[in-house]
Amino acid sequence: MAGETQITVIGNLTGDPEVTFLNSGPARAKFTVASTPRYLDRESGQWKDGEPLFLNCTAWRELASNVVASLSKGSRVIVVGRLKQSRWETDEGEKRSAYGVEVDEIGPSLRFASAKVVKATRSKGGDGFVPESAPDSPWDSTKVAVGAEGF
Amino acid sequence: MAGETQITVIGNLTGDPEVTFLNSGPARAKFTVASTPRYLDRESGQWKDGEPLFLNCTAWRELASNVVASLSKGSRVIVVGRLKQSRWETDEGEKRSAYGVEVDEIGPSLRFASAKVVKATRSKGGDGFVPESAPDSPWDSTKVAVGAEGF
Amino acid sequence: MAGETQITVIGNLTGDPEVTFLNSGPARAKFTVASTPRYLDRESGQWKDGEPLFLNCTAWRELASNVVASLSKGSRVIVVGRLKQSRWETDEGEKRSAYGVEVDEIGPSLRFASAKVVKATRSKGGDGFVPESAPDSPWDSTKVAVGAEGF
Amino acid sequence: MAGETQITVIGNLTGDPEVTFLNSGPARAKFTVASTPRYLDRESGQWKDGEPLFLNCTAWRELASNVVASLSKGSRVIVVGRLKQSRWETDEGEKRSAYGVEVDEIGPSLRFASAKVVKATRSKGGDGFVPESAPDSPWDSTKVAVGAEGF
Repeated sequence: MAGETQITVIGNLTGDPEVTFLNSGPARAKFTVASTPRYLDRESGQWKDGEPLFLNCTAWRELASNVVASLSKGSRVIVVGRLKQSRWETDEGEKRSAYGVEVDEIGPSLRFASAKVVKATRSKGGDGFVPESAPDSPWDSTKVAVGAEGF
Repeated sequence: MAGETQITVIGNLTGDPEVTFLNSGPARAKFTVASTPRYLDRESGQWKDGEPLFLNCTAWRELASNVVASLSKGSRVIVVGRLKQSRWETDEGEKRSAYGVEVDEIGPSLRFASAKVVKATRSKGGDGFVPESAPDSPWDSTKVAVGAEGF
Repeated sequence: MAGETQITVIGNLTGDPEVTFLNSGPARAKFTVASTPRYLDRESGQWKDGEPLFLNCTAWRELASNVVASLSKGSRVIVVGRLKQSRWETDEGEKRSAYGVEVDEIGPSLRFASAKVVKATRSKGGDGFVPESAPDSPWDSTKVAVGAEGF
Repeated sequence: MAGETQITVIGNLTGDPEVTFLNSGPARAKFTVASTPRYLDRESGQWKDGEPLFLNCTAWRELASNVVASLSKGSRVIVVGRLKQSRWETDEGEKRSAYGVEVDEIGPSLRFASAKVVKATRSKGGDGFVPESAPDSPWDSTKVAVGAEGF
């Protein structure tokens, strides 16, 4: 699929992720992320919470299993996925729609937490979406060029 | 700072993060992320690695400490930050520049790994950038409305 | 406001933008963007349209005026803004929510169209959000370094 | 290509775009965008320009032609593309790299300008990347649901 609307969301899980094993199909994990912006209150001079944005998220397969094994209510996460819309009609003929995120990558944020990462035994024959290899070394001179400069 | 160029990068650490404690200042962690796209090779019908993109990343303070405690060479990560450029002149008067990412959030990807998250004791008096609270519950009817629809 | 969820949407206006001049307040333009992904149909070997994503967008002030003066039904646009959610209760006590985009920048896409740009007389005293100046020249050696390489 | 690093850049052209017609090949347009963040100067209480980020951009084919026909030095633009890195060795054996953006969509920003859009006669047989059709009407009840709420 090309031309989908990518989105990065940072927020906290509002509950434990719920996993479903579709009949003879892959695992599916569902959860909701609440992303809360902050604003500077001019009277008090302090930062206060703004209105949260709630987004329902869905992850599939190995990613779904890892989400359930790793995250729980309150976890602060980084979600990268595609914003999708579903549409349906109620029994009364009223049209409804809902927005949600199909998750491509998700991880616990290290802003207020550390994490012990356990690499899964890689299942061969994936969906072809993700690079298999991590280049062993960065490109040398990049390091040099940047050294004194702060990146 | 307003109007900075936000970027989300998914890739693997090319080495262990290097931490520095600036004199009487905050911790700073540096690392390089290699993001490798994939393309479908028409002859073989298989996905192959494309040219990687290397990005030097810098994290600060508590985030830096958590990066060092959690990530190592090869870790697959999600990085959210701001793309920055530094410029300088060599001794020979040649102008140079380097690009890098100031990291706002980073976490280990759960695509091929699970993670055991350990919440840090929250240090009070942060930089005001990040919401403190996670709303306790999502907004109820969202769940209902979405229920049958797949998000 | 910090920590809002940024989004970039590319799509087509589903109708002419509607402008409102709030009483003694700023102009507000509303419009809906339909973003249609494409997928490769394996049977026919052709690209086909997927399910569109509809997003309601709101622009304010000078940006709103320029939207109304420049765009119309069918215009292909690039929208950069913040994803927001509003929540309310119906008279029957049913909870509802809606998602929309607060637009920070928007422009007609040049993919299938050209555009004659007319710079507005800059109103002084803006909202401080946007850089006033365009640096006159890029950084010289960048040009050189990149020259032979394809960027 | 899957898994590339997407980026949205807002800034001003540092010069007129330069177009090249590769031998019997497609048009290619090159230009540099300077993106200037702003910060609030606490002493003066005013917004000031921060360090600009310069990014070399490349557009191809019909998009390249439209860029050249529509934009010039100083134009404020929205660029959506993929961040790429090229690497080479100097005659002295020194390794170098450069970053740049492969442009997927670009348009003049309507923040400080209006634009008269002229739709190109659509060339059939495109690259399959972009949806051909714009849905005629948004989804009705979305409009209703949102009406009173500000999006």
